[in-house]
Amino acid sequence: MGLVVQKYGGSSVADAEGIKRVARRIVDTKKSGHQVVVVVSAMGDTTDELIDLAEQVSPIPAGREFDMLLTAGERISMALLAMAIKSLGHEAQSFTGSQAGVITDSVHNKARIIDVTPGRIRTALDEGNIAIVAGFQGVSQDKKDITTLGRGGSDTTAVALAAALDAEVCEIYTDVDGVFTADPRVVKKARKMDWIAFEDMLELASSGSKVLLHRCVEYARRYNIPIHVRSSFSGLPGTWVSNEPPQGEKPMEQAIISGVSHDTSEAKITVVGVPDKPGEAAIIFRAIADAEINIDMVVQNVSAAATGLTDISFTLPKTEGHRAMEALSKAQTVIAFDSLRYDDQIGKISLVGAGMKTNPGVTATFFEALSNAGVNIELISTSEIRISVVTRVDDVKPAVQAVHSAFGLDSDSDEAVVYGGTGR
Amino acid sequence: MGLVVQKYGGSSVADAEGIKRVARRIVDTKKSGHQVVVVVSAMGDTTDELIDLAEQVSPIPAGREFDMLLTAGERISMALLAMAIKSLGHEAQSFTGSQAGVITDSVHNKARIIDVTPGRIRTALDEGNIAIVAGFQGVSQDKKDITTLGRGGSDTTAVALAAALDAEVCEIYTDVDGVFTADPRVVKKARKMDWIAFEDMLELASSGSKVLLHRCVEYARRYNIPIHVRSSFSGLPGTWVSNEPPQGEKPMEQAIISGVSHDTSEAKITVVGVPDKPGEAAIIFRAIADAEINIDMVVQNVSAAATGLTDISFTLPKTEGHRAMEALSKAQTVIAFDSLRYDDQIGKISLVGAGMKTNPGVTATFFEALSNAGVNIELISTSEIRISVVTRVDDVKPAVQAVHSAFGLDSDSDEAVVYGGTGR
Repeated sequence: MGLVVQKYGGSSVADAEGIKRVARRIVDTKKSGHQVVVVVSAMGDTTDELIDLAEQVSPIPAGREFDMLLTAGERISMALLAMAIKSLGHEAQSFTGSQAGVITDSVHNKARIIDVTPGRIRTALDEGNIAIVAGFQGVSQDKKDITTLGRGGSDTTAVALAAALDAEVCEIYTDVDGVFTADPRVVKKARKMDWIAFEDMLELASSGSKVLLHRCVEYARRYNIPIHVRSSFSGLPGTWVSNEPPQGEKPMEQAIISGVSHDTSEAKITVVGVPDKPGEAAIIFRAIADAEINIDMVVQNVSAAATGLTDISFTLPKTEGHRAMEALSKAQTVIAFDSLRYDDQIGKISLVGAGMKTNPGVTATFFEALSNAGVNIELISTSEIRISVVTRVDDVKPAVQAVHSAFGLDSDSDEAVVYGGTGR
Repeated sequence: MGLVVQKYGGSSVADAEGIKRVARRIVDTKKSGHQVVVVVSAMGDTTDELIDLAEQVSPIPAGREFDMLLTAGERISMALLAMAIKSLGHEAQSFTGSQAGVITDSVHNKARIIDVTPGRIRTALDEGNIAIVAGFQGVSQDKKDITTLGRGGSDTTAVALAAALDAEVCEIYTDVDGVFTADPRVVKKARKMDWIAFEDMLELASSGSKVLLHRCVEYARRYNIPIHVRSSFSGLPGTWVSNEPPQGEKPMEQAIISGVSHDTSEAKITVVGVPDKPGEAAIIFRAIADAEINIDMVVQNVSAAATGLTDISFTLPKTEGHRAMEALSKAQTVIAFDSLRYDDQIGKISLVGAGMKTNPGVTATFFEALSNAGVNIELISTSEIRISVVTRVDDVKPAVQAVHSAFGLDSDSDEAVVYGGTGR
């Protein structure tokens, strides 16, 4: 029996009852013979309440102080959780990110982990303690200031600690049962996967699935730390995310398709009437990059021979839409494009599966399914193991349902198999 | 213009409006040419809410984790205050107790300050920042664990920082206008003192005055740091607490009497029928001391010659009453006393003033005032500059009013002088 890192999100520790329930689960893990390190997020809405307070006192909260403020949230939840465990008769100690040795760069509000030096955690474990660690936070290497890791930071803390402590598994407890073949709110017949490969999980995460963030999965893949995503409420086994299916399971075929994801948080900008000559696209995307805006899909129309002009479209987070339009308007003095079009009524549907590399029929089946559902495609982008299309936002739901069904992913399908969520 | 340490209590920073008001006051001090270090408590009821949460998850919260929990409160207020100052266009940085160099022993929940090494504060000040420091907290010297300083800890943090930074003054901002000659809720004619000596303030603090705690005043006296107690709401000058009246003020006579304090938080225990022979009292008070209970006044009756038995009475905080009675009951096998009596319907009235040392009439005037008010005295205890009596709790209010009036402390008295709050 080795070391287990468990991470509990804010909804799992939203109140005193939640904290006590989580404490019992942790103690059960300890009793089964494991060393246990727990990473915990702030309780329920604590972080939002702190952000609200910050906005009341200052229109643009400063990075360093904002991090100092937000980290109070995990401080509360971790101390309460340690108390709850102790009241069950087990030894527990809580540690801030700094105390746990989570060393980051100095980029406040979205710091990156540089190193993890968990000496105090090791000592606490060796003395028989359960170690409770504040998620989402660290300390900067140069200035010794408190930093936060940005969105999904607690998951990353958990995986980073699991890697540094050479844990058997990093269990991510959440309010859903695991990773599904599609969003169960959209596809009622979506199935929980028992296992998914890192590679496929990365594609799902970057194309709209919200269960795990790309950053956390990437970290786990780099250090080969198996992640087990599961519910803190049901206690049922969830979804394993790893290089290979868990040992001791029956042999299986590699799934063609892992799942269908969708994303309605993006907008599309079209630059109309761009001179079709080398270097024009570069100027456009340099203007966007200089504004520190990440873009997603890019498509350039075939140039109309008569005019020598072309259109360039790309998608980006809606939240960045305003700034991108501003940056492009300024660039119009350099690139003589005709006009800009902004469209936030779009949605993206992605089909993900490592098996599609060797299965030429997948793309055809995908487009047939969309066509049969009457969905018009506006943009297409593919990777080795993913196909994404952009449609009208109203078409997203029927499109996801149609594709999910066409690939035999529906849960009442006769073809369901244990692993990988495919219907083959 | 030197360095000023300002401390703001929880009621001064209870909400966003309060934080912004405090930020403006701090910026005004900075603008007047001072370097400013601010010590801040947790917002309003935050600490009580955290304690409530702790009680929900654990019947007896553990010391280390409890401290980790409570320190989240100051983390929130200090970060918000720094943000509010920055939004007024001034530079500010917040520091935890640990970052500010507040080194303590390892006694969780009531740690004592061992050393203050404010290197980071000095640097922040030298770079033109206003430094915001979390009150009430430190870090233990040996284990590097987060500690809290117990009741009144933020005031102690402020005085300790003022001493370590060689500040001109430690300003304690609170929700009252200063130190009064009596509790204004009991004596309507109580007057705010402009100045009071450390010595007298120590006696007032240990006999029921709640404006400053004994510990904080003792620290200030040891390092000779003048304290200025004032309101964060009115902005008016408050009460200076120091060795000598502030410079530039007109010469003054030493006041006979500084003020009248009272305390209704104590109970009285009487050990009835103790054999009147050497060592019996020692056994009684050893039993109390072993239970780590602090006692206040002690009185032993004159022994009745016929029986060879005596009664011993003492007062102690009501909160310790139950434990003290238990400890004494157990000791009954060693000391053959008859019985124990517990009485929590008592109150204590104290008259404080350094001038009484050389004024023999004070004691007589004090007892005459009580007698005229029809107040019966149960216990008496005196120090060089204080007389205290225990009465029925219902007699406390009339007793305080009578004594306050008898010593000419009432504010409409013709004899009022500027300093010391005496009517002589």
